Amino acid sequence: MNIGSYSYEEYVHLVESFHGSPAPGLLIGGFIVDLALKKLPEGEFFDALCETSTCLPDAVQLLTPCTVGNGWLRILEFGRFAVTLYEKNNGQGVRVYLDTEKLRAWSEINQWYLKVKKKREQDHELLLDQIKEAGYALLSIQRVRVEPEKLRRRKQGPVAVCPGCGEAYPARHGDTCKGCQGESPYVEVVAMEMT
Amino acid sequence: MNIGSYSYEEYVHLVESFHGSPAPGLLIGGFIVDLALKKLPEGEFFDALCETSTCLPDAVQLLTPCTVGNGWLRILEFGRFAVTLYEKNNGQGVRVYLDTEKLRAWSEINQWYLKVKKKREQDHELLLDQIKEAGYALLSIQRVRVEPEKLRRRKQGPVAVCPGCGEAYPARHGDTCKGCQGESPYVEVVAMEMT
Repeated sequence: MNIGSYSYEEYVHLVESFHGSPAPGLLIGGFIVDLALKKLPEGEFFDALCETSTCLPDAVQLLTPCTVGNGWLRILEFGRFAVTLYEKNNGQGVRVYLDTEKLRAWSEINQWYLKVKKKREQDHELLLDQIKEAGYALLSIQRVRVEPEKLRRRKQGPVAVCPGCGEAYPARHGDTCKGCQGESPYVEVVAMEMT
Repeated sequence: MNIGSYSYEEYVHLVESFHGSPAPGLLIGGFIVDLALKKLPEGEFFDALCETSTCLPDAVQLLTPCTVGNGWLRILEFGRFAVTLYEKNNGQGVRVYLDTEKLRAWSEINQWYLKVKKKREQDHELLLDQIKEAGYALLSIQRVRVEPEKLRRRKQGPVAVCPGCGEAYPARHGDTCKGCQGESPYVEVVAMEMT
């Protein structure tokens, strides 16, 4: 069983190197993205939608040209384990998701995914073995059309220099940047020497 | 001039392979993350904050252990070109940002970043040359402390199976998943055969 252009073992190594650990969600995510790539409708350019920010975005970033930074991967915080790849002009795409019905045949994956067991009670080795054995058998697939309005990517628009912090920011945010509008996550800021 | 453990040329290749093109923002992002890593305070574990979703998150994902999927990289949509790396327990960290004052010495970068010129009027080669030559000279650095409240990562909590779509979702979202609450980005959904 391959994942993208990798053997399963190569993919596991790639996951460890990028993500830090062979997270179960990212291994299943490999099969999800691999299946979506195989079922992709014709078309030259596709974007990705990921319906959770947990693990799954890394599978998309490792196996497709879509990354968070290049804007081709968008994340919806639905907490559903699903990836959609769609043609960016007409919105036609495929959605692959972890199917709770099919999950029942795989005891350890089912208990992990539905959080039936506490983490320390899980059999991690059995979990990884079941994921590798199950592969596509955990998944279902849908043909979807993404809402045209979601296809348009918001332009950054003109740039302004913030009178508060002196940094550049999107002028549409207002007279100052969001950081200076009180949204800053910092309680202390002290300039440091470069050397 | 190295970027992380890579030569500049190796980093450019890495960027092309992951991001699809040697985007100017991601090349500058390499220097930003590299400088932040060098100035990082003592401490074993650090998280990353990125103040824009454009380009910069990919520099963090390529050069640090922090990714979107493993939860160690968080993105604030401030549209400021800044990365903060901070110790996850005490919030002490460094923030590196593109300094608009220092930018003035680099005509093509300045015009690109502040969008003074239209894209087709830009001299792309000069832009990339100036970025490589400038390196750290575009940047300033701050010692920051991240607000303790921002340090706590939200737990997913219990999982429920949605009576609408049959998929698993975080129970705290309500009686159905967000997709079935009307937030679905799909205008058409048709089940497909797996074979």
